[in-house]
Amino acid sequence: MRSPTPQLDRVSAPSDMKALTDAELRILADELREEVIETVATTGGHLGSSLGVVELTVALHAVFDTPRDKVIWDVGHQCYPHKILTGRRHKMHTLRQEGGLSGFTKRSESEFDPFGAAHSSTSISAALGFTVARDMGEATGDAIAVIGDGSISAGMAYEAMNNAGAMGRRMFVILNDNEMSIAPPVGAMSRYMSGLTEFANGTLAALPGPLRDHARRARQLVTGAVEEQSTLFENLGFQYIGPIDGHDMGQLLGVLRAARTRATGPVLIHCCTVKGKGYAPAEAASDSYHGVGKFDPVTGIQAKSKPNAPSYTEIFGKALTEEARRDPKIVAITAAMPGGTGLDIFAKTHPNRMFDVGIAEQHGVTFAAGVAAGGLKPFVAIYSSFLQRGYDQIVHDVALQNLPVRFAIDRAGLVGADGATHAGAFDIGYLVALPNMVVMAASDEAELVHMVATAAAYDDGPIAFRYPRGEGEGVTLPERGVPLEIGKGVIVRQGFDVAILSFGAHLGESQRAADLIEAQGLTVTVADARFAKPLDKALINQLARKHRVLITVEQGSRGGFGSMVLDHLANEGWLDKTLAVRTVNLPDRFIDQAAPDAMYADAGMTAGDIAATALQAAQLQRVKVTDFKD
Amino acid sequence: MRSPTPQLDRVSAPSDMKALTDAELRILADELREEVIETVATTGGHLGSSLGVVELTVALHAVFDTPRDKVIWDVGHQCYPHKILTGRRHKMHTLRQEGGLSGFTKRSESEFDPFGAAHSSTSISAALGFTVARDMGEATGDAIAVIGDGSISAGMAYEAMNNAGAMGRRMFVILNDNEMSIAPPVGAMSRYMSGLTEFANGTLAALPGPLRDHARRARQLVTGAVEEQSTLFENLGFQYIGPIDGHDMGQLLGVLRAARTRATGPVLIHCCTVKGKGYAPAEAASDSYHGVGKFDPVTGIQAKSKPNAPSYTEIFGKALTEEARRDPKIVAITAAMPGGTGLDIFAKTHPNRMFDVGIAEQHGVTFAAGVAAGGLKPFVAIYSSFLQRGYDQIVHDVALQNLPVRFAIDRAGLVGADGATHAGAFDIGYLVALPNMVVMAASDEAELVHMVATAAAYDDGPIAFRYPRGEGEGVTLPERGVPLEIGKGVIVRQGFDVAILSFGAHLGESQRAADLIEAQGLTVTVADARFAKPLDKALINQLARKHRVLITVEQGSRGGFGSMVLDHLANEGWLDKTLAVRTVNLPDRFIDQAAPDAMYADAGMTAGDIAATALQAAQLQRVKVTDFKD
Repeated sequence: MRSPTPQLDRVSAPSDMKALTDAELRILADELREEVIETVATTGGHLGSSLGVVELTVALHAVFDTPRDKVIWDVGHQCYPHKILTGRRHKMHTLRQEGGLSGFTKRSESEFDPFGAAHSSTSISAALGFTVARDMGEATGDAIAVIGDGSISAGMAYEAMNNAGAMGRRMFVILNDNEMSIAPPVGAMSRYMSGLTEFANGTLAALPGPLRDHARRARQLVTGAVEEQSTLFENLGFQYIGPIDGHDMGQLLGVLRAARTRATGPVLIHCCTVKGKGYAPAEAASDSYHGVGKFDPVTGIQAKSKPNAPSYTEIFGKALTEEARRDPKIVAITAAMPGGTGLDIFAKTHPNRMFDVGIAEQHGVTFAAGVAAGGLKPFVAIYSSFLQRGYDQIVHDVALQNLPVRFAIDRAGLVGADGATHAGAFDIGYLVALPNMVVMAASDEAELVHMVATAAAYDDGPIAFRYPRGEGEGVTLPERGVPLEIGKGVIVRQGFDVAILSFGAHLGESQRAADLIEAQGLTVTVADARFAKPLDKALINQLARKHRVLITVEQGSRGGFGSMVLDHLANEGWLDKTLAVRTVNLPDRFIDQAAPDAMYADAGMTAGDIAATALQAAQLQRVKVTDFKD
Repeated sequence: MRSPTPQLDRVSAPSDMKALTDAELRILADELREEVIETVATTGGHLGSSLGVVELTVALHAVFDTPRDKVIWDVGHQCYPHKILTGRRHKMHTLRQEGGLSGFTKRSESEFDPFGAAHSSTSISAALGFTVARDMGEATGDAIAVIGDGSISAGMAYEAMNNAGAMGRRMFVILNDNEMSIAPPVGAMSRYMSGLTEFANGTLAALPGPLRDHARRARQLVTGAVEEQSTLFENLGFQYIGPIDGHDMGQLLGVLRAARTRATGPVLIHCCTVKGKGYAPAEAASDSYHGVGKFDPVTGIQAKSKPNAPSYTEIFGKALTEEARRDPKIVAITAAMPGGTGLDIFAKTHPNRMFDVGIAEQHGVTFAAGVAAGGLKPFVAIYSSFLQRGYDQIVHDVALQNLPVRFAIDRAGLVGADGATHAGAFDIGYLVALPNMVVMAASDEAELVHMVATAAAYDDGPIAFRYPRGEGEGVTLPERGVPLEIGKGVIVRQGFDVAILSFGAHLGESQRAADLIEAQGLTVTVADARFAKPLDKALINQLARKHRVLITVEQGSRGGFGSMVLDHLANEGWLDKTLAVRTVNLPDRFIDQAAPDAMYADAGMTAGDIAATALQAAQLQRVKVTDFKD
């Protein structure tokens, strides 16, 4: 049973907050925190980061004139209090579900979400864009980027501050410093920010109570003078205010009001918060409450989902750990996702061979190239969609130099509740286009183990293997991985009419499609391509020669595996004759969040869809086989 | 007639430099400078940056133990003195020519090039990689990254320093500060570095002569103490030494020797140099001597190449300037390449509507997304290969949000002397895969003018247009651009047997191929697709229906336009019947530098190649038309 929320009930939009006193805003924040906890208890989601910004969210909407002023939440996973205050309270129970609210900010969802997110470190760039538009006369007010200490350490955020500091236009960056991105932050910048906080705590401690912060801030705001030594942010052209207590509504309102009134150029407000603030189970375990399932709001105990099989992520982590036990040259690299990639498992056994470079995919990929050039065997584990951040480095530093960097690409294909922003849709295409690159996809978790071994053994150039989010198929795992022959697929079912050539984790769905097709009287061959590059041309030729219909299947966009197969068939002359080829791919649109199965149904990639495609092709092909065109 | 070079003649490898006295090293540097000038006078190339690092190059090889120690030149265009000292002196006359030395560092060229480059800001990441390899027992010594003030301002370099500073391992970064990347540098970081130099000049000026620098450096090296206020680099965990005079061999040798002896962690040596140093015409005009053609070494006068037609770059700059005259919402964005992209032309007329974000493609793309979300019409002009740096931002911030950002993609296809690193090979594929994206390519410069108008008029989502490096076809330019119908191609020649469907600037070559084919008795249709996305399906269907052979042609890798055409044909059933399709693409390997025509010949993309492909397909197709497979 929910507690009463008298203040929150008064707010159907941020404009309603203008009537509230500061004392009422404090109560509003308390009610909002309870509302967030109760909501996420029923939906699951990013709890810790949302609880950390409750007061900040209230203060921003109370002080600024949203939606004319643009509050841009970096990553956007901390936006639940913001969604509740901006007219979406009644839909919060649909969070991250099919047809429901996104777990991130999203332009199509609300005018209060001026710039969507999900990948990190984009907010300052976007805010600077809005600022320029305002200065050129567009109907938009102040831009305020809210960015965490992890996200601000990415190169992209630095590029944006470097540019914004030089431009000198009025805009605001709120550094939400909770000393915790998803994992504990790494990097010199993080160490530096901690130092700033300690420094402020020390020198200002002499002043009594709230005065010390106000004194410091007021002086800075009025004079713009650099106090003590200048901060890194000041070196970049920002006025620096803080650190302030991000859970003290008085401080927040005071600083934001002063900044809004006085600022003439770019201002960075350093705001210290506690991830999970105000909810004991989350405060005690911030990492595990970053993304949570449904839980009991009283005890904090999360409902256990019962996986049928270990996750691909876990199996990757264990398999790499085993390979590294036998090969001392293997090292592992993550960009701030040790847990998400399974490299936390690796680090337990090989702590000195795991490198967390921070949210820095560009650097991470080229660092790996340097490690490989230096003689070691780096495995870079990055989600498919985040690897897009390091694309030029894959092209220019890895592929072009033919350096043996191993890419472990987790979250390939559609990923469920995280939705379109996290879909691993494009990696097959953007990798197979690159000379020297070997591209594999695991059809089940046993294959993944073999692909880890294949990548460990392959030292002739770059090699990538992709695998989906979530649990495996439940197959028996091999004692140890055995390197696969490069560029060789395998036939897993033999028929005569239709051939389905699957690349990656849709093999099970392809088998089910084969069952459906055989029920219609045609026989079906199913093959696991294993490699999109190099292609198994002998296998493809055999399938083309012996079947009337050939269907390629992959969990990725057009331009990937199917396109390479078609290209081969066309250029080898196989399409000159009467062979019906179809490609099953993700469609040419973004797929909103839902359960992965529902997402693939939305994408037209179920067994039924594949079977219907094959049967229609077979029928057309039979009809038209003698029907030569004009 | 060349001057005698007694010291340089003694050096066939850096090990020979160990026998030279400091005085002889000074003479060596002078001889090396003359050699660079005389070489580049005959080959053309990156003169200014190479002249700026002559003394630094000598000092690095004299003090460090290359190739065991790894000197990594960022971008690599300043490496000519390095190439001369490392056994490539006798090949310098082949620089940037077919079969000759690369204009950049290249692993396959020399063991003294431990990590190749051409795109900026990769060196610190690579150096950290070598450092980790050394610390894990690989046979490699110290890693030294040499990076310019422009390159170090990129986010990727910041990510690397952030990581290196936190790791605390012994490595060296030489900041080669010439206050000049290709264009004058922008951004707060640049302003900050100038401040550092002025600061040092001021406070240290009191000390007599060479003592002041040595005193400062020695104290820092020995004590590690932070003098005066700490620098941004110190905040990131580096020991900061400098600024020092990068043309004073005594200072360079002293500092490098001390640093090599004493360093225990990451060290940044701030070294001030003058681009074009020691060659009056270059010092007087550093920008124009960044990349030069052949020139007279006495007068500095460059041999004029006589273009037949204005360049695509210039035509783009003018066309956008004209569009912006009529539409006040148009703004232009470049990532440190105002001249290279033609936006310097735009800036002359619209100085307040041009934004140079610095070497910061990630930020630049998302900044454009923010500008578009704010209501303006941004044109982002970035070379195809550099746009790879902003790929995730194109996916996540632009395409996913369907924001109307216009991408002007210069240097699409093969680019000549800059070689494989600068090839615009992948953009068609990596863009057509994205939902919401419109992708055009200009078949000549008049088409480019229309595409600029098309992009200006199109406000429904993102749109990109690609065009090649160099001069246009020499066609008459329209008075003003007229928006094209989205997704519509055009037939430019009508025949009946073979259809060639060209996307982009290979249309002329396709026409010549058609001539060759018609000489063999077949008639040929040639179409300009204009759009790779959305595809002109009606046009493609018509070509498929009325011809026996269909050839797609594009200046890009597989997975692009041809793949999309094949995918359409396959899935619409056109391939079920007897249609011979072939795709002409860049091959699956990197193409080294040569004249663009020679590179396309190397790629198998001449008119003769296309014609042979078509004729062979027609012949096979005729033979096999009734030959139904088993």
